[in-house]
Amino acid sequence: MQRYFTDESLTEGASVTLHGAVEHHAITVLRMQVGGQFELAGAQGHAFVVTITGIDPLTVRVEQRIAANHELPVAVTIVCGISKGQKAELIVQKATELGVTRVLFVNTQWATARWLPDRAAKKVARLQQVAQSAAEQSHRDVVPTVGFVPLLDAVMRLDADAKLVAYEESAKQGEHAQLIQTVSAHPRSLLAVFGPEGGLAPEEVAALNAAGFVNAGLGPRILRTETAPWYLLAAISTYTELQEDSQHLVNSEKN
Amino acid sequence: MQRYFTDESLTEGASVTLHGAVEHHAITVLRMQVGGQFELAGAQGHAFVVTITGIDPLTVRVEQRIAANHELPVAVTIVCGISKGQKAELIVQKATELGVTRVLFVNTQWATARWLPDRAAKKVARLQQVAQSAAEQSHRDVVPTVGFVPLLDAVMRLDADAKLVAYEESAKQGEHAQLIQTVSAHPRSLLAVFGPEGGLAPEEVAALNAAGFVNAGLGPRILRTETAPWYLLAAISTYTELQEDSQHLVNSEKN
Repeated sequence: MQRYFTDESLTEGASVTLHGAVEHHAITVLRMQVGGQFELAGAQGHAFVVTITGIDPLTVRVEQRIAANHELPVAVTIVCGISKGQKAELIVQKATELGVTRVLFVNTQWATARWLPDRAAKKVARLQQVAQSAAEQSHRDVVPTVGFVPLLDAVMRLDADAKLVAYEESAKQGEHAQLIQTVSAHPRSLLAVFGPEGGLAPEEVAALNAAGFVNAGLGPRILRTETAPWYLLAAISTYTELQEDSQHLVNSEKN
Repeated sequence: MQRYFTDESLTEGASVTLHGAVEHHAITVLRMQVGGQFELAGAQGHAFVVTITGIDPLTVRVEQRIAANHELPVAVTIVCGISKGQKAELIVQKATELGVTRVLFVNTQWATARWLPDRAAKKVARLQQVAQSAAEQSHRDVVPTVGFVPLLDAVMRLDADAKLVAYEESAKQGEHAQLIQTVSAHPRSLLAVFGPEGGLAPEEVAALNAAGFVNAGLGPRILRTETAPWYLLAAISTYTELQEDSQHLVNSEKN
């Protein structure tokens, strides 16, 4: 079933009028009719089935709440160095599918591209649209937020239960334990910094370390700048969303 | 350090002459000189540091073997339905970074695109190049093989220790345990089938099940056709390459 997002607060039985992109997509693109149903996720991240009661304007009746939770148990923020071309879109789209909460882009020393503050707002708005589309498609309960941070110093002041930096040199030195150790401490929030295509400068890594960010390897292969955050998110999902169920199953088999 | 692949068998101290793409990239693109070094992975998947002893033709002396192993402990074959556009390239590139052994593309009932056998060879040759570039970049020890299977029936006859099908309906029903259960049985080889954008038809899934393929969910979010195999590979890496080290560490802390 098609899923959309709205800023409205939803409650069962309420009638809601929807405008803009949702109305256009449901009525003009999908040609939905009165009586048709779709899923609508509201302001608090709760999703409901809704039934169309009118199409001009698009009005829906809020039906039963959808109990399923599609959100990672850890609120993950990925902070990515700037890359050339369409990589930012690809990072946002896939990270949204993989459960990210927030994607920040940051200028770093060795990046081959740089966002100027006056142009960044437009890029962020475009990427926010990418996140919304990907959230609808992957049936997320919330739309991840996209942002831009001009300087890495500002990232160091962000708050999170756990802070990692994906550093290629750590991976080369065989550091394979930190990510799982971090996730197994059950942080509610995790902040992870990824270098751009040129990597992070050693002094940037040192500054992050001094600010409490711990170096983490992401397996023995060298991952591209866009692949590394996807690996991190899939690893966290594996550990918290697959693993847990599997352990329950093993435990229940033992009992 | 730059890494290349060769079909030659390499032994320490030997002298090897390299032609074609390696010679072009090292000498013309990177302008390497006599005395310069790069990594060369040979026919048995063993990589060595080599030193340039001549540049016309490109001749190298094989130095010390590189001990690091960059290969997943499970030989993973992903079988992907055909998608439109550049998705096949993206699947191959990222799956290579994430450690895949073999990527097969297969025509399925509900796919919105179809490869005809006479055009498939050219597509596969192009994708094999993508795999080679990605293997060099990610410092793999072997280049994954890319292939095309016209019919799903042929996939059902492929041999592997473990066989999975990533079925969206299983994921929706909350199946989150099968992948980890499968990987924790330490298969040497794993074959996983992924539907195209339109998904697999229920009768295709039933036929795969009858052929010994087990349905596996990949977390609570709906992943696009290209993202699902990356999730699987990252999950296997997490479980076999990160997890193991972390458990060793936990155990050694206990002792």
